[in-house]
Amino acid sequence: MKVVSTAVDIQALSLTYRRKGLRVGLVPTMGWFHEGHLALMKEARKRVDKVIVSLFVNPLQFGPNEDLDSYPHDLDRDCVLAEGVGVDLLYAPDTKLMYPNGFSTNVHVRGLTSGLCGGDRPGHFDGVTTVVSKLFNQTLPHVAVFGEKDFQQLAVIRRLVQDLDFPIEIIGHPIVREKNGLAMSSRNSYLKADEMAAALSLSQGIKQAQKLARNKQEVSVQEIRDAVAHEILKHRECGIDYIEVVDKTSLQPCSVVNSQSILLLAVKINSRIRLLDNSQIIGS
Amino acid sequence: MKVVSTAVDIQALSLTYRRKGLRVGLVPTMGWFHEGHLALMKEARKRVDKVIVSLFVNPLQFGPNEDLDSYPHDLDRDCVLAEGVGVDLLYAPDTKLMYPNGFSTNVHVRGLTSGLCGGDRPGHFDGVTTVVSKLFNQTLPHVAVFGEKDFQQLAVIRRLVQDLDFPIEIIGHPIVREKNGLAMSSRNSYLKADEMAAALSLSQGIKQAQKLARNKQEVSVQEIRDAVAHEILKHRECGIDYIEVVDKTSLQPCSVVNSQSILLLAVKINSRIRLLDNSQIIGS
Repeated sequence: MKVVSTAVDIQALSLTYRRKGLRVGLVPTMGWFHEGHLALMKEARKRVDKVIVSLFVNPLQFGPNEDLDSYPHDLDRDCVLAEGVGVDLLYAPDTKLMYPNGFSTNVHVRGLTSGLCGGDRPGHFDGVTTVVSKLFNQTLPHVAVFGEKDFQQLAVIRRLVQDLDFPIEIIGHPIVREKNGLAMSSRNSYLKADEMAAALSLSQGIKQAQKLARNKQEVSVQEIRDAVAHEILKHRECGIDYIEVVDKTSLQPCSVVNSQSILLLAVKINSRIRLLDNSQIIGS
Repeated sequence: MKVVSTAVDIQALSLTYRRKGLRVGLVPTMGWFHEGHLALMKEARKRVDKVIVSLFVNPLQFGPNEDLDSYPHDLDRDCVLAEGVGVDLLYAPDTKLMYPNGFSTNVHVRGLTSGLCGGDRPGHFDGVTTVVSKLFNQTLPHVAVFGEKDFQQLAVIRRLVQDLDFPIEIIGHPIVREKNGLAMSSRNSYLKADEMAAALSLSQGIKQAQKLARNKQEVSVQEIRDAVAHEILKHRECGIDYIEVVDKTSLQPCSVVNSQSILLLAVKINSRIRLLDNSQIIGS
């Protein structure tokens, strides 16, 4: 596996691959790889000839009081893990090369970004769509793979790609979970042992919601939200950012729960660790 | 010459060219071709194997009281002219295909867009950078050629390409003028016979400024602006939107006039026809 640190180099490599008729895949990440990341890389590996993984902790998508400075990182560890699943190129650019003096461009997606994580983290999705536009143009992939844990992010990126006509197929990969149900996330590394029970309440809340939907002829959005909130608020460490049942594509609130609905959760553990989870409630 | 009307088709054609190792050039236009456009096409013809000209009157870059509906158009005429200079593909998409229901993305360049035409036409440059991002991804060129008459637009696009890492070389082409000095523009077709003298005052103002700079050891920005305004305001049809001497790259106002300075003019004729012109005052 080759490690590349400049846009010029990665662009030249990708163009060389493309000229040879090889298909290129991108997995954008912020590093500190877990099985969720590795599953995205394996998914790309199945689909393309050359797998590029970008590793960039993007300051634009962090708010002033968020965890930019403490975000976990270990490039050597990540290199070993990525190489182990057959990644061809690890692209780890420097922040000053990504955003040199005079950088002035912002990519904004309206609508989909205004609620949910966009409501809690103003400017977050502009940071995401701006860096993803850059990464797409730097790595020039045929295919890009994103995790469904960041469900709103995936919807926003699909919109971005459609609106700006990026010639890229976007693949969403299902959430990868620990055996105990916890959705994998680099931020799980912040959890102390005595916070794990609280962290598990997200996936347990989802299970409760699914059980409710199975056992009742018709279940209302409010019943689902109440059941999930009840499960989460058993833990005094938990503060709810949102519990929403929305349409899978538009992310608009659902009036009824059906196979097009998705339950989205954001919960803060001890006001410190923001965890996301999501799931369909009724199978499609 | 082939005429193509969908993004899917133009993207597929460009990718086919690229796979064959051919170089692709784009000339983005709003149609109603004049010698200025044809010069851009010839410039592209010299540089690449396949020349794509896009023809799209982009509603996003017009304000509510501007000339979107009256903008001149004649596809058959434009096809003959483009074919005459060796264009390979004319890409003329439909507005509903460019901006279908649900379109939600905006590309914004800060700073460079805030004054000059950006001050007079709020939202104009967001329209430009958004459509140009789309056209780049639809046509996937190696090279794109823009006219220097829209000097601020060219600076904004250079910034966009640098910031978002589009793998495209941007070529600026000098203004093409009528024999009488008038900078070529599709909007010149709005001019009535008795408005021509007023329209010529822009290029005459520039000549006065250059003469002043030649004849004086050192000329101030204010002297330049006064001389140009004097020339233009000889004509009661003229209203000045701006006369500015700015740095060629940053577009920030110059304190002294030198070879890095450019004189930028925007003048309205009878409050109806907005004309642009620009030139260096002191040769580099």
